[in-house]
Amino acid sequence: MPSWVNRQWILARRPKGRIDLEDFVWRETTAPTPGPGQMLLRNLVLSLDPTLILFANGDAGPASTPVGGPMRSLAACQVVESRVPGFQPGDVVETFSGWEDYSLSDGKPPSSGDLPPFVLPKGVPTELAVGVYGYTGMAAYFGMMDVGRPKAGETCVVTSAAGGVGTVAGQIAQLHGCRVIGVVSGKDRAEWLQHETGFAAVIDRRQEDVGARLQALAPEGIDIFFENTGSAELIDVGLQQLRDHARVVLCGATALYLMDQLPAGPQHLINLIMKQARMEGIYAARSFDRFAEARAAMEPWIRTGRLRPLQDVLAGLEQAPRALERVFGGANRGKQLVRIADAAVG
Amino acid sequence: MPSWVNRQWILARRPKGRIDLEDFVWRETTAPTPGPGQMLLRNLVLSLDPTLILFANGDAGPASTPVGGPMRSLAACQVVESRVPGFQPGDVVETFSGWEDYSLSDGKPPSSGDLPPFVLPKGVPTELAVGVYGYTGMAAYFGMMDVGRPKAGETCVVTSAAGGVGTVAGQIAQLHGCRVIGVVSGKDRAEWLQHETGFAAVIDRRQEDVGARLQALAPEGIDIFFENTGSAELIDVGLQQLRDHARVVLCGATALYLMDQLPAGPQHLINLIMKQARMEGIYAARSFDRFAEARAAMEPWIRTGRLRPLQDVLAGLEQAPRALERVFGGANRGKQLVRIADAAVG
Repeated sequence: MPSWVNRQWILARRPKGRIDLEDFVWRETTAPTPGPGQMLLRNLVLSLDPTLILFANGDAGPASTPVGGPMRSLAACQVVESRVPGFQPGDVVETFSGWEDYSLSDGKPPSSGDLPPFVLPKGVPTELAVGVYGYTGMAAYFGMMDVGRPKAGETCVVTSAAGGVGTVAGQIAQLHGCRVIGVVSGKDRAEWLQHETGFAAVIDRRQEDVGARLQALAPEGIDIFFENTGSAELIDVGLQQLRDHARVVLCGATALYLMDQLPAGPQHLINLIMKQARMEGIYAARSFDRFAEARAAMEPWIRTGRLRPLQDVLAGLEQAPRALERVFGGANRGKQLVRIADAAVG
Repeated sequence: MPSWVNRQWILARRPKGRIDLEDFVWRETTAPTPGPGQMLLRNLVLSLDPTLILFANGDAGPASTPVGGPMRSLAACQVVESRVPGFQPGDVVETFSGWEDYSLSDGKPPSSGDLPPFVLPKGVPTELAVGVYGYTGMAAYFGMMDVGRPKAGETCVVTSAAGGVGTVAGQIAQLHGCRVIGVVSGKDRAEWLQHETGFAAVIDRRQEDVGARLQALAPEGIDIFFENTGSAELIDVGLQQLRDHARVVLCGATALYLMDQLPAGPQHLINLIMKQARMEGIYAARSFDRFAEARAAMEPWIRTGRLRPLQDVLAGLEQAPRALERVFGGANRGKQLVRIADAAVG
């Protein structure tokens, strides 16, 4: 193999309290060579998820990204050379990979219980494959279908509704006949989301009183509260407006990932008793054996336009730190991606 | 009808922060006469439940007990005279009734969604009927069976484990093959509970570090956390030790009922995501149409001694305020009852 250039973003220090562009340094080296039991991946599209800060902060145990090594994300990658059974050159896989042109993988999950590398469906653009058909879409699908269980005529509230998971989850509820109300940060984003999805309403939590708006929009209460922020304040707003037998889907906790210490939690859990309501966490990696089932269910929705993949793509590996900043600053519109390269045609 | 004496405990003022014997005053009057659509009840056994403080505090909306009227509890009562269809003289019913010898009832629940008066199974001692076969037993049964879903070999932790609900819930888990760990207040109570139930362990939360003890007793974590206190501190202890796919049953919130304002909640809800765990509230009144099914399931357990009804009975209406004090002081051993009178033999 020729010594291809490998451009990298190195994690220079653990982010503290906020994402800082100085947390990452640019380096150029040469692509590694796979040893026995390894494969060489060409990274194509990076998936910028709030959870990856846990890897950067060192809060993901043995799976954490070491300081001085390339920063890591979920990514769509193409197998260049493989010494791992089950992975062929040309396969496009989703896995935890580096913010770099080329990475090595042993075909295993970063730690027990995490997502193992998996081959993405063929014939699908890599951006969709890593977005709505990838881990993000899986989290939205299993969170909404297994826990939310949407029924026609119900009211569904989604927080971080303009994000990768929120846009998919809200649309899944909507196509099941739910009245969907999104909660986002930013007026422009609220208008954008409502235009793109046709949600019944989108609330800008920076400028509006979410509780008062929800009470006005859904005076009979909420059936499904799909929560992506981890904010005790927002969870309390939802808990206080649950209907009988409501479902609260805990899918993410963006507000918490950058904190050193967990803040106090929501005060109104007692409403789960009063309303005989359920709160359940969703961690899609554990439903790995059902990903194909989820994709088969979503494909006709996407093909017929009832579920529109909303993606916010920055072009070029250079943009990766800025893309992460967008996610934590609440700037992304839909799934935040960074395109590094196109897949080689097999 | 002769004018029978009606002894009463009148709610003199709304309890503030604690139960005070001075909140209640003794009065003697005569039994009322049922009008059209009413029935006269002879109160036999009072059920002292932590939730009744919500009625006393005025926090139960239109169902709240008015100051100056008789204090109210769930109770087993015998119908003396009935002008309500479906209720016959001699029937023993469970309903919200007064701390008094005789009460009137219109046969309806105190407010929409609350428990309606219901006829208790015949041939069962009234104490059992209002305990394990009554609302208390139903809360334990539906909380454990519908939400907890005990499986052999699992670890189940029950808080307020020496109380009316906790003693039943823990034993139901145990007879399904779970290893049950109780959490109670008080060393004597812990010893008593372990002796009566054979639970794997009982922790005294007044003297022991519950988190450390649980970690030592169940290093692989908790499958079912059956929570009766509402204490954020205890819920956090449980959340931090959940296993994958654990179930947290929120069944009561004794620590909160006497508070003016809800305190901060648990910090570790994020563990519901990490463990893909479920937290669900149980409010047994909503399963009213399945009470007969629950009793049919419990009857053989009780008959064969695998589920022992543990009751703490004070004799005489005079004892009612003291019995309530026992419940909030964590002194009761099993279901706290006050026996007022025996049922008349039909």
